[in-house]
Amino acid sequence: MHESPSRWPSAPADEDRDDVPFQLSRIAGNLEALEETIIHRLVDRAQFRADRKAYQAGQSGFDGEDERSLLEVRLAHHEAMDATFGRYCDPVERPFTGGLPASRRAVTLGVTGLAVDDFDVVNRTAGILAAYLQLVPRFCPAGDDRQYGSCTEHDVAALQAIARRVHYGALYVAESKWRAASAELAGLAAAGDDDGLLKAITRPDVEAAILDRVAEKAANVQSCANSTVRQLVAPDVIVAFYRDTVIPLTKEGQVAYLLNRRRDR
Amino acid sequence: MHESPSRWPSAPADEDRDDVPFQLSRIAGNLEALEETIIHRLVDRAQFRADRKAYQAGQSGFDGEDERSLLEVRLAHHEAMDATFGRYCDPVERPFTGGLPASRRAVTLGVTGLAVDDFDVVNRTAGILAAYLQLVPRFCPAGDDRQYGSCTEHDVAALQAIARRVHYGALYVAESKWRAASAELAGLAAAGDDDGLLKAITRPDVEAAILDRVAEKAANVQSCANSTVRQLVAPDVIVAFYRDTVIPLTKEGQVAYLLNRRRDR
Repeated sequence: MHESPSRWPSAPADEDRDDVPFQLSRIAGNLEALEETIIHRLVDRAQFRADRKAYQAGQSGFDGEDERSLLEVRLAHHEAMDATFGRYCDPVERPFTGGLPASRRAVTLGVTGLAVDDFDVVNRTAGILAAYLQLVPRFCPAGDDRQYGSCTEHDVAALQAIARRVHYGALYVAESKWRAASAELAGLAAAGDDDGLLKAITRPDVEAAILDRVAEKAANVQSCANSTVRQLVAPDVIVAFYRDTVIPLTKEGQVAYLLNRRRDR
Repeated sequence: MHESPSRWPSAPADEDRDDVPFQLSRIAGNLEALEETIIHRLVDRAQFRADRKAYQAGQSGFDGEDERSLLEVRLAHHEAMDATFGRYCDPVERPFTGGLPASRRAVTLGVTGLAVDDFDVVNRTAGILAAYLQLVPRFCPAGDDRQYGSCTEHDVAALQAIARRVHYGALYVAESKWRAASAELAGLAAAGDDDGLLKAITRPDVEAAILDRVAEKAANVQSCANSTVRQLVAPDVIVAFYRDTVIPLTKEGQVAYLLNRRRDR
């Protein structure tokens, strides 16, 4: 089985209880634990310059690749490999690219408790990628160091960490809220009321707490770095990305989940 | 061109000077900047349990893979992909696996200033992998969470970060020391005096400073983490890995470089 943040860091005994993965405090803890990983990967990417050519079509250096950028080629190759290892058998792992091969590895996925027929209804990778490409020149130093291979490796690692947070939140927070208020949410979903659903799932106080925590972590993670040899990332930039991209896309995914949630269980 | 820490975070004007990549202070700065990346990747791996099955032959879940562990299969696939992107064109990037395909990407590598015919004389990946496998149960929580796919992804990321540090140090520190004392080192190398070379390149005060810095960084990187939702790694464990593995293997690589350094330039 692939990574599923809902299973960690629980004590094994907890796992036997069906409702445990959907306790909101537990889900919030798992979302919190993913913050450091996202921060680490953004800060590591920032050790290379913005390297615009890595994102331009036809500049990948691959023969005959006129349409795709190096990042697009890298994402496609990386996700094809990941797919053969069974990554996308896990509901939380949603891919950025299509046409992926089947898993070559036997993967046993436990009962998820989720109730949509297609986990990809929550897939927000297009939005994540577009926002990330806007972010790169804001958190990486300007210029071109020709380290395109390295920077796209780090991009893929960062994108996967962000996607895991968005899709874990979309699936598990939405299901948790459904279980707590299924009559209200089912009514809004049946009426196709996106705005009503968005309002019903929004918790401004929780969002504010997340942003404060991310700011503090982004500063602390870098507090011992020697800025003469290592590029620092302003915590504000990471906070703004959380505020303008990570949180809104997670909520969009939740609304999509609720609109598509099965009513028969 | 792939990542080459020697080129970062230099100002472009510096790059025109041939001797700049071999200034010891500059190399030390680049080695220092790689420490956070190693710490980040170890701490992220520790969010999964030790998962011994991921390292046992025949347990990968791949049909017909009786000899290799999941980590070995993952490393082979990952490095084959990396090779097609040109990663191993960079002297600093030495692979863990053999039989890799040629680069499919046009990679322009500048003049390195290094003077060995085969960069793989410094390759210490076998030692890195063996030591890392010993390390896993010491820095990851005991037990099995069945997250083998995720943990081996993180293993590959950690191994690559460690290898980059070891091989960058092996190549660039050794060449720098050669340039500062070529007569002495050439004499020891001509006599095949490994022990003499090891003694000549060893700087106990520098090693002690590295260990102090790594301890401080490992603590600070995790200082804001909520230990009820995120696994912490004891800084001592990372310091011991640096002391017993990273530094000795870097020096072994330096000795190998000096023994194989060309005398004609």
